[in-house]
Amino acid sequence: MPPIIRHAFLALVATLALGLASKAGAADPLPSWNEGPTKQSIVDFVTRVTKEGGPDYVAPEDRVATFDNDGTLWVEQPIYTQFMFAIDRVKATSNEHPEWKDKEPFKSVLAGDMKAVAAMGEKGMLEIMAVTHSGMTTADFRETVDQWITTAKHPRFKVLYTDLVYQPMLELLDYLRANDFQVFIVSGGGVEFMRSFTRKSYGVPPWQVVGSSGVTKYGMWDASPILVKESKVFFVDDGPGKPEGINHFIGAQPIFAFGNSDGDKEMLEWTAACKRLCFMGLVHHTDAVREYAYDRDSSVGKLDKALDEALDRGWTVVDMKNDWKVIFPSEASGP
Amino acid sequence: MPPIIRHAFLALVATLALGLASKAGAADPLPSWNEGPTKQSIVDFVTRVTKEGGPDYVAPEDRVATFDNDGTLWVEQPIYTQFMFAIDRVKATSNEHPEWKDKEPFKSVLAGDMKAVAAMGEKGMLEIMAVTHSGMTTADFRETVDQWITTAKHPRFKVLYTDLVYQPMLELLDYLRANDFQVFIVSGGGVEFMRSFTRKSYGVPPWQVVGSSGVTKYGMWDASPILVKESKVFFVDDGPGKPEGINHFIGAQPIFAFGNSDGDKEMLEWTAACKRLCFMGLVHHTDAVREYAYDRDSSVGKLDKALDEALDRGWTVVDMKNDWKVIFPSEASGP
Repeated sequence: MPPIIRHAFLALVATLALGLASKAGAADPLPSWNEGPTKQSIVDFVTRVTKEGGPDYVAPEDRVATFDNDGTLWVEQPIYTQFMFAIDRVKATSNEHPEWKDKEPFKSVLAGDMKAVAAMGEKGMLEIMAVTHSGMTTADFRETVDQWITTAKHPRFKVLYTDLVYQPMLELLDYLRANDFQVFIVSGGGVEFMRSFTRKSYGVPPWQVVGSSGVTKYGMWDASPILVKESKVFFVDDGPGKPEGINHFIGAQPIFAFGNSDGDKEMLEWTAACKRLCFMGLVHHTDAVREYAYDRDSSVGKLDKALDEALDRGWTVVDMKNDWKVIFPSEASGP
Repeated sequence: MPPIIRHAFLALVATLALGLASKAGAADPLPSWNEGPTKQSIVDFVTRVTKEGGPDYVAPEDRVATFDNDGTLWVEQPIYTQFMFAIDRVKATSNEHPEWKDKEPFKSVLAGDMKAVAAMGEKGMLEIMAVTHSGMTTADFRETVDQWITTAKHPRFKVLYTDLVYQPMLELLDYLRANDFQVFIVSGGGVEFMRSFTRKSYGVPPWQVVGSSGVTKYGMWDASPILVKESKVFFVDDGPGKPEGINHFIGAQPIFAFGNSDGDKEMLEWTAACKRLCFMGLVHHTDAVREYAYDRDSSVGKLDKALDEALDRGWTVVDMKNDWKVIFPSEASGP
């Protein structure tokens, strides 16, 4: 065979091999989801909105999908990861704040009395969040989060928090992107905290992360520009704040949204008003053995009114115990 | 030749032909820019940051470019387009506001006395903006802008405002995207106003548009969720607000930024602090014949301190008259 023909032949063989491989891979885009109505509702939706010429076809530019983060894409129990970070920051910086020894809620945090901290309720938590998330530059804050998120371990599972993302949801994000969806995170969590890991953990770039945030001020320090994080609230991305945030930061109405708590109710309602085929989903935590089981009475990720509405309106509700073959990437079998 | 070899051979020929075609097409990505140091500075920058293994290489995920809109991507004289829209809205809705006949600044607007409106300064303009940009749903506002932007004509050029985008800048946006940049608009203009045309005019999706905005409230109307635009300011994306907005909405520091006025100064300074090779550019309006000539003394798009800083620090300054072969797409020759 002349060399040019041989090269062409080899190229063809390689192309065929790749084609077969991708065909085999495409057979089940959601291998960690058990067969059943939940998985079927997702596949049906994606199939219908991507079918050109079909009655439910949606142009790629309008395929916007929004996901809550805590409890939807990763573990949020026994308490939101970002609050664990804040607790660790109080401990790590207590030397600079001798007054904390006699001042609540810091006194209890430093004494390791988390029950007392919890008893102080939202006010105590907000105070802890405020002091640990302001008074530094955005660059310094980011460095602190980067360092923490790559070393801190979850109290029960004893692995990095980023190891506790949900494998079935990672597959769902990939599946949507493979079908030309733009995937956004819309979470009550701090946007600068999340951006530390969303690209690596979820493949979501920083500008597709919507979250809560404080006011940030531009200024000069030693002839260099800096952005300083202030303790004043800029935006709270929770409840009605989610559709408001979707409008401010995304500027397009989702046709697909997934959450897991009452804080996602308005985002799902806003999505349901999309005036074409749209998908609304909730993760219901029903697996105390492999993860956690909680809903209506939980102080973290309470799911009550949104569950009623989902059942009432026929939205997809994931039964974690029965719908998910595996929970975490460490359990997933190799390719 | 056996069929399989023949197919492979033809595939190879097709590949080679495509390769040549794309090479020829890549000869000049910026055909509306005259040869010279301005154009060269852009091409040099893009070549260096995309050269794998080179000292200035930047990974695609960090190739963030931000552009001002008014006066950078489209005409802003004799007055910002969005203000023309607001003036037209005052006229169109005056029947619903009989009190405007005796109340400034509306009285002068309705009398067509733009000199009197201008004399009232910023306070008058803000009042006109507030009443025309609030008190309706986001959907209704969008419909109004869509209708206006596809019909209203520029007073001097007598064409749609969207026909007055700058052809050389459109080529620059395409050139950057072809080199795996993410292109954002970061403008003092209203974000919901801009989103009406940024996808069609610039190929920029709504979530890559950062602008000024008012508070928006989620609520229910007749059992359907709506977002209502309020008159309270949410965010002002101008001056120091630009780096702050870049942090809130994009979450990554640009390595390439283009503006045209003192309102872009802090965005360019923030970009210049990118700690790698970065590009800062200004459009200097020097062409009174084909467009407008203005800088230090203009009330619209004043360019004074930013021009001094650009000259001092060696940033790229586009001399519109000499650097741009054509200004508007209508003058551009076909492919």
